[in-house]
Amino acid sequence: MDRFRGVDVLRADQFNREDLEVILERARQMADALERGEALDTMEGKILATLFFEPSTRTRLSFEAAMLRLGGKVVSVADPKSSSAVKGESLPDTIRTVEGYADVIVVRHPERGSAEVAAEATDRPVINAGDGAGQHPTQALLDLFTIFKERGRVEGLTVTLAGDLKHGRTVHSLSQVLALYGVKLILASPEALRMPPEIVEGLRSAGVDVAETGDLKSALSRSEVLYMTRVQRERFEDPAAYERVKGAFILTRKMLEASGRDITVMHPLPRVDEITVDVDPLPGAAYFRQAANGVPVRMALLSLIA
Amino acid sequence: MDRFRGVDVLRADQFNREDLEVILERARQMADALERGEALDTMEGKILATLFFEPSTRTRLSFEAAMLRLGGKVVSVADPKSSSAVKGESLPDTIRTVEGYADVIVVRHPERGSAEVAAEATDRPVINAGDGAGQHPTQALLDLFTIFKERGRVEGLTVTLAGDLKHGRTVHSLSQVLALYGVKLILASPEALRMPPEIVEGLRSAGVDVAETGDLKSALSRSEVLYMTRVQRERFEDPAAYERVKGAFILTRKMLEASGRDITVMHPLPRVDEITVDVDPLPGAAYFRQAANGVPVRMALLSLIA
Amino acid sequence: MDRFRGVDVLRADQFNREDLEVILERARQMADALERGEALDTMEGKILATLFFEPSTRTRLSFEAAMLRLGGKVVSVADPKSSSAVKGESLPDTIRTVEGYADVIVVRHPERGSAEVAAEATDRPVINAGDGAGQHPTQALLDLFTIFKERGRVEGLTVTLAGDLKHGRTVHSLSQVLALYGVKLILASPEALRMPPEIVEGLRSAGVDVAETGDLKSALSRSEVLYMTRVQRERFEDPAAYERVKGAFILTRKMLEASGRDITVMHPLPRVDEITVDVDPLPGAAYFRQAANGVPVRMALLSLIA
Repeated sequence: MDRFRGVDVLRADQFNREDLEVILERARQMADALERGEALDTMEGKILATLFFEPSTRTRLSFEAAMLRLGGKVVSVADPKSSSAVKGESLPDTIRTVEGYADVIVVRHPERGSAEVAAEATDRPVINAGDGAGQHPTQALLDLFTIFKERGRVEGLTVTLAGDLKHGRTVHSLSQVLALYGVKLILASPEALRMPPEIVEGLRSAGVDVAETGDLKSALSRSEVLYMTRVQRERFEDPAAYERVKGAFILTRKMLEASGRDITVMHPLPRVDEITVDVDPLPGAAYFRQAANGVPVRMALLSLIA
Repeated sequence: MDRFRGVDVLRADQFNREDLEVILERARQMADALERGEALDTMEGKILATLFFEPSTRTRLSFEAAMLRLGGKVVSVADPKSSSAVKGESLPDTIRTVEGYADVIVVRHPERGSAEVAAEATDRPVINAGDGAGQHPTQALLDLFTIFKERGRVEGLTVTLAGDLKHGRTVHSLSQVLALYGVKLILASPEALRMPPEIVEGLRSAGVDVAETGDLKSALSRSEVLYMTRVQRERFEDPAAYERVKGAFILTRKMLEASGRDITVMHPLPRVDEITVDVDPLPGAAYFRQAANGVPVRMALLSLIA
Repeated sequence: MDRFRGVDVLRADQFNREDLEVILERARQMADALERGEALDTMEGKILATLFFEPSTRTRLSFEAAMLRLGGKVVSVADPKSSSAVKGESLPDTIRTVEGYADVIVVRHPERGSAEVAAEATDRPVINAGDGAGQHPTQALLDLFTIFKERGRVEGLTVTLAGDLKHGRTVHSLSQVLALYGVKLILASPEALRMPPEIVEGLRSAGVDVAETGDLKSALSRSEVLYMTRVQRERFEDPAAYERVKGAFILTRKMLEASGRDITVMHPLPRVDEITVDVDPLPGAAYFRQAANGVPVRMALLSLIA
């Protein structure tokens, strides 16, 4: 697996199908090892730095748990206000300093493109843990891994991406990854929050069968996987427009049961109210398992690049 | 000790006398191991998550040190602003996510009852590190352990709880634990800050000899142990009432020496000015040893429940 | 090396020449071990507490990486707002509590003299990681180590300290350390930001050849080492005075090349704009290597005092 050694993980679309297979297979091994309670020492003697210029408990703890489960160690900047950036230091300078303290660097930063900037500043591998409206590649990988684990395959599935498809970084990245597998995509969103046309075009020219709809219920009746995201009030200029659509993009148990289908429900979390809590006990409610899958997937990446 | 395996530690009064004996005995072994500098590996391969929705350096570091001394590892959310709760996530959702990253979860949260909510959300053991005005069971356990270590026994002692007995979560929990031992309790407080009557009744019906007084000095003359807490100005509607009582509930070296007794002085810390610093060098000033006892007591709990 | 055991590291000038040689030699061994990727276990079973009452990513991560590279463990307070100090606790009380959780304590605090206060409160070794306008001894040690590593020796070199020499804690400490080696010092600063006369006197009476100048370019033409610090606008009462001097104390590649000399450029970081980024690729630009040297130097100190 030498082709991954020292590689930066910056974008979901940097991986081809073969890369993804390697990552998924490694993640599967890691998940098995976790389940057996096996002690791993792949990262023994190595230090991971998690640099979070904006807070994200979930992503930070997931990376840190992954590193610790591999026998490695962690230094962490969890809070933007405790970082040198407040003293006017540039991101490349911060990275060139931190490379003296750590073997791998995970960066989350509010500005799009910042992960590339960080990666250029150092020879150490950099993993993008979200760069604003840009990319969040490890989320796309754990989403893909979750579909595999929940459904046994990805090829041939009908996957509905629902909610705010305009701004959602996770659905953009995930759709690009799914394009490498022969899936059928249904894009279900309010009119004002449709997937950007250039992404839809890209998917189609990659051979993906894409359907767009404003009707989540009808999408459910044809789906094996539903990936929900939140429709935020702030995204609407006209409050009345928000009021008209919001109910249609809240997933309830009733809607799921009415579909008569065995649907895997995913969500990048945190969830606010876009999936009602009565969905949680259903066997198809996979979002917490999805979050937990972040650990073996990040273990896989860390072990491949280090 | 299988009866502790997987148990949540939520309330001081969930333990019976036999449970407490087991915990104290385990804590004593842990304290001995620490003293001998013995390397322990009870928690090797395990991860503890410390989730602090309000800051508490002392409690957080004490749990983390306990986990590390047992050979375990830690992921931590020290700062409420860096948590997903700011994005509107519910506590059960946060816990169900974190259970994917850790084997044991310690939660501190400003709302009473939140520890129960957290425990219900996950199969992993949850330890309550303080839920607002509610419970702080590990504090009560380390207080009990401190009395044992300092006096060699608990049974038969006269213990004065002093200061703000109305709002003090630590004195409520400690009194419930002491009720299982044949102690005599003196409750010394300003009239406005007396122990809630339902707690006093509960203690009496459990067979505890309870005396209430507004005179700390007279209480000292009959005590082996003094547990001080702070009388805060903010607790008084009438500033004049505060001014009248505040001096009487500041413990000085002079007061202690005037008592003519060998008194063990305890305090949950942080101390502001309710114990003058000239008390610190006295052999009976146990409050810093008490804080240090948090480590073996939390090691005991972790090793029993994991 | 028993003379270091249990010693507090509080001031740069607490070390004599022989002490410095021991520390430098140990740091060299640590740097070699790091380079070979050798696993060290000097601090196995030990816990370091990093208490930062003001944020400093660089210094905190550097200490934590040093401890982890030595096989030790870390508990950390990165954020002043999450510390007990906000509840009114005194620094000695905080330290006496933390000594129950850790074997070595690193403190950064905004008040001058606070490191001494911390050290008096505990028998555990305390390392000063910066006490306001006071001392930052480990910075001076890593600066010294960097000169050794970059130039092969310190004795006989001409070192220019440039920028704000009035307020710069790092240049004060470094000059005191360099005084123990036969260096020639050039102090290059705006008139309003000259090195305090008592420090200059101290250097001269220690036998150091000291020259003062307002002309950085001429200093360069005679130097082997340039230690840059930032001239901050806020330090000038008269904005016009700042505008007149600022350009003269920004180091550019052109200035360096015009000097015709092989100069080692150092900076305590973070850098804002006082060294232009076109200097970074030059072989003499040592500031990021200097930051990385913090790890072996702090490993050396930790291993010597623990």
